Amino acid sequence: MKLATLKNGSRDGKLVVVSRDLTRCTDASFLAPTLQAALDDWQRIAPHLEALAESLETGAVPSERFHENDAHSPLPRAYQWADGSAYVNHVELVRKARGATMPESFWTDPLIYQGGSDSFLAPRDPIPLVDEAHGADMEGEVAVIVGDVPLGASVEQARDAIRLLMLVNDVSLRGLIPGELAKGFGFFQGKPSSAFSPVAVTPDELGEAWDGGKVHLPLSVDLNGKPFGRANAGIDMTFDFPQLIAHAAKTRPLAAGTIIGSGTVSNKLDGGPGKPVGEGGAGYSCIAEIRMIETIADGAPKTPFMRFGDTVRIEMKDTAGHSIFGAIEQTVQRHEA
Amino acid sequence: MKLATLKNGSRDGKLVVVSRDLTRCTDASFLAPTLQAALDDWQRIAPHLEALAESLETGAVPSERFHENDAHSPLPRAYQWADGSAYVNHVELVRKARGATMPESFWTDPLIYQGGSDSFLAPRDPIPLVDEAHGADMEGEVAVIVGDVPLGASVEQARDAIRLLMLVNDVSLRGLIPGELAKGFGFFQGKPSSAFSPVAVTPDELGEAWDGGKVHLPLSVDLNGKPFGRANAGIDMTFDFPQLIAHAAKTRPLAAGTIIGSGTVSNKLDGGPGKPVGEGGAGYSCIAEIRMIETIADGAPKTPFMRFGDTVRIEMKDTAGHSIFGAIEQTVQRHEA
Repeated sequence: MKLATLKNGSRDGKLVVVSRDLTRCTDASFLAPTLQAALDDWQRIAPHLEALAESLETGAVPSERFHENDAHSPLPRAYQWADGSAYVNHVELVRKARGATMPESFWTDPLIYQGGSDSFLAPRDPIPLVDEAHGADMEGEVAVIVGDVPLGASVEQARDAIRLLMLVNDVSLRGLIPGELAKGFGFFQGKPSSAFSPVAVTPDELGEAWDGGKVHLPLSVDLNGKPFGRANAGIDMTFDFPQLIAHAAKTRPLAAGTIIGSGTVSNKLDGGPGKPVGEGGAGYSCIAEIRMIETIADGAPKTPFMRFGDTVRIEMKDTAGHSIFGAIEQTVQRHEA
Repeated sequence: MKLATLKNGSRDGKLVVVSRDLTRCTDASFLAPTLQAALDDWQRIAPHLEALAESLETGAVPSERFHENDAHSPLPRAYQWADGSAYVNHVELVRKARGATMPESFWTDPLIYQGGSDSFLAPRDPIPLVDEAHGADMEGEVAVIVGDVPLGASVEQARDAIRLLMLVNDVSLRGLIPGELAKGFGFFQGKPSSAFSPVAVTPDELGEAWDGGKVHLPLSVDLNGKPFGRANAGIDMTFDFPQLIAHAAKTRPLAAGTIIGSGTVSNKLDGGPGKPVGEGGAGYSCIAEIRMIETIADGAPKTPFMRFGDTVRIEMKDTAGHSIFGAIEQTVQRHEA
């Protein structure tokens, strides 16, 4: 099934079930007022939501037109957002650009950062930016929402806890990150509010593209209306979602509604850093990556980070070309205090 | 007023108002079912809670005995937990112990890390520990809960957003932290679930001990029943709460219910690292700090981190000797998968 949260003036919005083709939706708030409420009591509520989704497909319940513009992020606020760096290729490239090698352990020990989860952007909300010098960048990613995961969970327990999948724009401020990471405690100001796709889907909606750990489909990232990234999320993902979840649960439980991200989707090409979409490559899911390639090739980056008015669109289509999650589409907007 | 959340089998517990002397409480769930619900609509609900608190003091409403053992952390789960390192003395000492100097900017630019907030421990819950080699340590801190803070808030706006204060045990796994921080993305496994004091209080409950930015009272930290720390939270706090909040809100808004921590409370003595309580000093609010002092003095630490069965108690008393927030009291317990 496919679920979304419609804006209704409240902090958590209203839960709806969305049709497979994303054209219609039906109120699900009589089953659970919010997506978090459904996740809190998933075993009991999910079967009713599934039944409602079937009724929606057959036209057996009242429905209305689904507008992606009316959607919040599926969880407008969450109790946890933890983002992995599973495409180690991406990490290696970033380091290479600044002349640093990557420890071998990065291929065997997952890297995860704790993100802010109290105030996500809606998928069509502008990205508020105080200063272009902060270096706004998109990061196109896949994420899962889990149910309760016990402390010390095995990879198999982690796999069973995956409830929903969605896309993310993990907005990053590249101008602030180096100084912040140098302080040693990770990201804070460098990672402003993220946005998620209009729709979250259960794994079965992905059919054969979901193997229980990865999504084997290309992630479309367009910058200012032009194809920028088409990297396949199933390729070069060194750690799959169950491994990332188990890593996150090593010393503490994860509560239902925790969101775990894949990190920026990134594909190698013939063991190298890949090529832009315009040159027949899979392109990039963030600007930082093409800037690294440019730096490696020419000694300096030439693609600028996002400026006021720039637009990013992140979407994933199935093999028949239909959008699975709806599209994140955001414009960078000057923030006036 | 003083607020607490009683365990009732639900994820968020039940909101109660607690008497000033912490002996009695009265159900407040008819005003707001949970503390988060009260924070979400504070302007409207707080006056009713204040009125109920006054009625409780005068015996005008039914009440029951308040048992700190029955309390959850005031927010059993929260949308954000961001912890500062405002006692720069503590940071400088840690670095000194490993022979590193601290950048001068640490005295002017606050350091904050993003913590996990989905599953806090209750104030009397055991601390689950998988392996003593993880090096469990307590960190005694003060924290505030804020209302909505806009992106780019001024220090004055930040000050006005402070709703409640409480104490924290920011449990840390010292054995995991060095390796984790070396990866560059901050804490994750090294910071398991934190616990908060049984009671959260509005700033006016602190009287003259609250100057709008800091709490001018000693924080009692006892390890295995013996005084370990009596550092004054109002001394050597380089950044006060409004400054920490404004720092956190520089690139994104903070949603109501966000918890901001002070970092480990730490006092200098005559410009130096202080002395144990037993030697007439203010002592330490975490074991790591005394181990640093031991390392500086003798070349090696001698106080071990917490072992299975060890107990920590964190409390703050007013000038008349009355407990303000109730006590965090936790025993380290072996976690069996």
